[in-house]
Amino acid sequence: MVESSSRHRAGIDASGESTAFDSRVVIEHVQPEIDAGKFPIKRVLGERVVVTANVHTDGHNALRAVLLYKPSHGSQWQMVEMRSAGAGLDLYHAEFEPDALGTYEYTLQAWVDNFGNWRRDTTRKIAAGQDIGVEICEGRALLEQAAARAAGATGTSELKHYLNMIGDSPSLSQSSPLFTDQRLSELMLEFAERGRVRRYERTLKVTVEPQEALFSSWYELFPRSWSPIAYKHGTLSDVTARLKYVADMGFDVVYLPPIHPIGTTKRKGPNNSLESEPGDPGSPWAIGSQEGGHKSIHPELGTFEDFAALVDAAKRLGIKLALDIAFQCSPDHPYVSEHPEWFYHRPDGSIKYAENPPKKYEDIYPLNFESESWQQLWDELCDVIFFWIEKGVHIFRIDNPHTKPYPFWQYLIAKVKSRHPETVFLSEAFARPRIMEQLAKCGFSQSYTYFTWRTSKWEITNYLHELTQTQVVEFLRPNFFANTPDILPENLQYGGPSSFLIRATLAATLSAAWGIYGPAFELCVNQAVPGTEEYLDSEKYEIKNWEFNDQRTIAPYLGRLNQIRKSHPALHNNRTLRFLEINSDELIAYCKTDPRGTDLLITVVNLDPYNVQSGYLTLPLEELGIDADFQVHDLITDRRYNWSSPTNFVQLPPNAPAYIFKVRKRVRREFDFDYFV
Amino acid sequence: MVESSSRHRAGIDASGESTAFDSRVVIEHVQPEIDAGKFPIKRVLGERVVVTANVHTDGHNALRAVLLYKPSHGSQWQMVEMRSAGAGLDLYHAEFEPDALGTYEYTLQAWVDNFGNWRRDTTRKIAAGQDIGVEICEGRALLEQAAARAAGATGTSELKHYLNMIGDSPSLSQSSPLFTDQRLSELMLEFAERGRVRRYERTLKVTVEPQEALFSSWYELFPRSWSPIAYKHGTLSDVTARLKYVADMGFDVVYLPPIHPIGTTKRKGPNNSLESEPGDPGSPWAIGSQEGGHKSIHPELGTFEDFAALVDAAKRLGIKLALDIAFQCSPDHPYVSEHPEWFYHRPDGSIKYAENPPKKYEDIYPLNFESESWQQLWDELCDVIFFWIEKGVHIFRIDNPHTKPYPFWQYLIAKVKSRHPETVFLSEAFARPRIMEQLAKCGFSQSYTYFTWRTSKWEITNYLHELTQTQVVEFLRPNFFANTPDILPENLQYGGPSSFLIRATLAATLSAAWGIYGPAFELCVNQAVPGTEEYLDSEKYEIKNWEFNDQRTIAPYLGRLNQIRKSHPALHNNRTLRFLEINSDELIAYCKTDPRGTDLLITVVNLDPYNVQSGYLTLPLEELGIDADFQVHDLITDRRYNWSSPTNFVQLPPNAPAYIFKVRKRVRREFDFDYFV
Repeated sequence: MVESSSRHRAGIDASGESTAFDSRVVIEHVQPEIDAGKFPIKRVLGERVVVTANVHTDGHNALRAVLLYKPSHGSQWQMVEMRSAGAGLDLYHAEFEPDALGTYEYTLQAWVDNFGNWRRDTTRKIAAGQDIGVEICEGRALLEQAAARAAGATGTSELKHYLNMIGDSPSLSQSSPLFTDQRLSELMLEFAERGRVRRYERTLKVTVEPQEALFSSWYELFPRSWSPIAYKHGTLSDVTARLKYVADMGFDVVYLPPIHPIGTTKRKGPNNSLESEPGDPGSPWAIGSQEGGHKSIHPELGTFEDFAALVDAAKRLGIKLALDIAFQCSPDHPYVSEHPEWFYHRPDGSIKYAENPPKKYEDIYPLNFESESWQQLWDELCDVIFFWIEKGVHIFRIDNPHTKPYPFWQYLIAKVKSRHPETVFLSEAFARPRIMEQLAKCGFSQSYTYFTWRTSKWEITNYLHELTQTQVVEFLRPNFFANTPDILPENLQYGGPSSFLIRATLAATLSAAWGIYGPAFELCVNQAVPGTEEYLDSEKYEIKNWEFNDQRTIAPYLGRLNQIRKSHPALHNNRTLRFLEINSDELIAYCKTDPRGTDLLITVVNLDPYNVQSGYLTLPLEELGIDADFQVHDLITDRRYNWSSPTNFVQLPPNAPAYIFKVRKRVRREFDFDYFV
Repeated sequence: MVESSSRHRAGIDASGESTAFDSRVVIEHVQPEIDAGKFPIKRVLGERVVVTANVHTDGHNALRAVLLYKPSHGSQWQMVEMRSAGAGLDLYHAEFEPDALGTYEYTLQAWVDNFGNWRRDTTRKIAAGQDIGVEICEGRALLEQAAARAAGATGTSELKHYLNMIGDSPSLSQSSPLFTDQRLSELMLEFAERGRVRRYERTLKVTVEPQEALFSSWYELFPRSWSPIAYKHGTLSDVTARLKYVADMGFDVVYLPPIHPIGTTKRKGPNNSLESEPGDPGSPWAIGSQEGGHKSIHPELGTFEDFAALVDAAKRLGIKLALDIAFQCSPDHPYVSEHPEWFYHRPDGSIKYAENPPKKYEDIYPLNFESESWQQLWDELCDVIFFWIEKGVHIFRIDNPHTKPYPFWQYLIAKVKSRHPETVFLSEAFARPRIMEQLAKCGFSQSYTYFTWRTSKWEITNYLHELTQTQVVEFLRPNFFANTPDILPENLQYGGPSSFLIRATLAATLSAAWGIYGPAFELCVNQAVPGTEEYLDSEKYEIKNWEFNDQRTIAPYLGRLNQIRKSHPALHNNRTLRFLEINSDELIAYCKTDPRGTDLLITVVNLDPYNVQSGYLTLPLEELGIDADFQVHDLITDRRYNWSSPTNFVQLPPNAPAYIFKVRKRVRREFDFDYFV
């Protein structure tokens, strides 16, 4: 509906520079905008896009600015007028909320508000008692011009009505609608002189994804260890049977390591040993055997029927099934014989195995994404995703994406999401910061992070600032895993069960998405290969016999955390995170709200798994919108505390190392708190 | 010389997204870059352009990155290899120094360094004692491919020589050049596989201007008050005769308010009164009369011969003459009758005078930059500039640019500089920050600033941070005027002569360009129209009789300041400014160096014009590259102090309110300081 006409546009060529005198208005510093619009920002359904920009022009000119947005495939722009965010700043803002999955576009327009200028100046002249006979003629002329532009459109008759009302040679009283009528102002916005409208030079994009792309609780498990019979190879059906165990902990994404046939050539034995014994199950990441590749299920895990049953059972429990996709092959993968051109070849004719010299990974052949047949390969890999989408999966955890070219991911994710915008991709890249960010820019919905290694107050504060208070929040959504099959971090190795409570609480409250690898986590498994962060006797290479019913499990605590997460919108976003002042390096405190500010949670965590820690927490009451007299309600213990000062004493023992306070404001009556706000 | 070939480029269309698999390397966050390359950065001759960027790729791939640059009209890119600025950051940097006025372009290229990967991996395998027979064949093949690409170019024979030296089936010792030869590494850079080179998507520009665009000392004067005979209308020749007075103060730019014929219609009288008496000279900014317009000289000031003599005299004294250009007309300007279409017309047929309702400026007609004949008008105004360039002027102070459209300035400056790249434009905009920045982006070489109103330590520190430590330093060059004919700031009205010393010192040392309006400044004139910042009996409306030889003049102090500025490269730039810790809110301290760090000056100023102030100055010695034992040499008084601690006591009376310390490092001999470093 709002398109810049080229009526007044004139290309001028001075010294090889092209200057188009299309508008005297400038639109700049548009936010959010990633790398000059090269990459989309991200939102989930229900999240708003708040757009700000500096908009200004020369002189005393008033201006109007509008935000335009539409679904990418739509043709009709929606328009919202932008509001000034304060005189002197030339900062304007407006917002919209995408209401469908896929891609939306947004851009801005602004123009000198001739009618507004006229209204302002003439009103001042009236106030100063100056004669405004000529000015009224000018104002009427502006109306006539707008009516001419409106020709035919809805609104034409309204404008004509105003013209009639004002008359041909109006008196001051007759012309009063020119100065005061709000509806006339709206019409003049709609039919403004668009010949010299500034249209922002870029159309920006936002990828709209399902809520789980931002807010989800992940549980990783190896089906082969989930048999009720000790050390018997578990199956998908065993997982189906025990899925309520996971649901009771409140996790809503269950993700499985690769479920494909496992190669036998150079199969790894227990603890990643180079030799395997017959009966060793091998690593699920050595994908492919005579029994199939990325579109097959490892026979020992079951059939496609079993898989369908698992997907169904999960759905009934409110759980989405996620698959781990590792684009690499064992030497036995069918691709190796069918498409040798997809691999790297050495001068002696052999296919290159993976290596990081001097280390060799002879059980894995990397794919050559730059081979002559790269396009067939890329499309085949897209088909792998489409295949599993057909089977009911829409969440994919991608293994080691940082070892494949960025353009490949951009291609694959765009292609998949064009048909299935509900698809969610989690990037498992533990790489350098710019690489992790680039993968997010290429379209990954969520990203693994450095959370696992950020343990001190200083580290956590700085890292979360980067993730939530910088531009990164627009395109990289963290998923805080407290452990993974590859990482048993030092803090969990030496801090006992308390450290598991601490790390789970931090992950679940700092980040809208979090996850664990279980049951190793809830059973507080802390035995590592000495001097490493590898699990001793890792499930990656052998079948474990988990004691699901161990009395010492922290599963109930995890369930409580996830329940709090579900019922509190404050925890469904990252950008409202704010750290709070607390006078101890061993205590960390922060708050979050929902974007509308109605749900305010304050989390306090004792970072020391060995000792009781105490300190004074100071709240910036005014900025948080809290009166001096309020109540904090610990959602973990259900205990309430009445506070009547910004500074309050807190104390946390290592075995109950956190408060998650819901802040309850006093109702303006003497006998009650509004417990339900 | 280095152009990306499109050999491997392939457009892919997935879901309407075009993905070109041209390179797996990313180049991002290129600095300096203004608004995605929409505007050039600025340098003066002798200034370097240090370019940084994040460059990275997937996996363990090594890469090489180069900075390319050339004059805009040149066809040959120069190449500099970029160096890593630290592992983990993926940050690279390189620099170049433009050696001619005009526009330079720069961009980046990067690619996966196949040869580097091979060298690194194979070297590790050798160290681990692995067999590398196949690897040597791979390495030799990379050389052969490079030789094929080099075909014909210089370097081909060198590559062939290496191939011969290594032989067909080389042993480890024969193949050693492959691993160690530096020249071979250079050849492999030059003839790298460019099919998958990432070329940064933007070509960035730098405007290269003469040094005075950055570093200059300005003196504004009204010739009509420079007659040796009291109250007689002064002339350009009077200025010529007295120009040594200005040169003795060390100013190198003398700028004159408009020197054109002054209109008589609605001429303003003394103190901006609406009625003028016969004999009142009128405001020089009411430009144009029967005697001519912007290309004429006010007859009472003299002739074009007198003007030429002034330009010559100035040149002999090392002074450049700058003109004030105000694109507006008195009702008597020839344009009004010759080109009525260049003005605004009201419905009653009259031409619109300037107004800011309810205020009227009936002696001024604004030009209509958007009229139907805008292009003729714009070109005529360019011709005004060309006219005065012909007369020997290359520095123009532009009056109120913020009341004319940005595109006009972009057009005019580009057109003028394409023929005369030595031209310097100073923007006299006291407008909102975004507007002042936009004018600088449009091409103004220098900008008036808010310095005049930044007086407290907090204000100065914050404002200078914005100007020198943010991206603003790349495109906006401040000119710190301590006063102007329009602004006698409060601090000068009430602080006595001390405040003039303070403000001059701050301006001259904080900003590479500074200026005053004299002789009102050096004579410490401080009488304002009560309650305003207007000079009482302002020279804008009447002829003054200046007492040039007043004993109380601070001219000698200003001369000292300018002499220090000339001889110290530390003061020729803004970006090295750094504030220092001093424990008094009334004392401010900062240092500057030249870009190579050899000239280090520390300035300490007492901001209180009424009282002696003292405090402890603490220097970050290590960061400044100073040993604990050093000397500071006050360039104002020529006194020296030996300091042997980071913290030292300073005390400044209001009548000698500043130190400008040259830091002299101890020579590594016991008996001397290196006074001359």
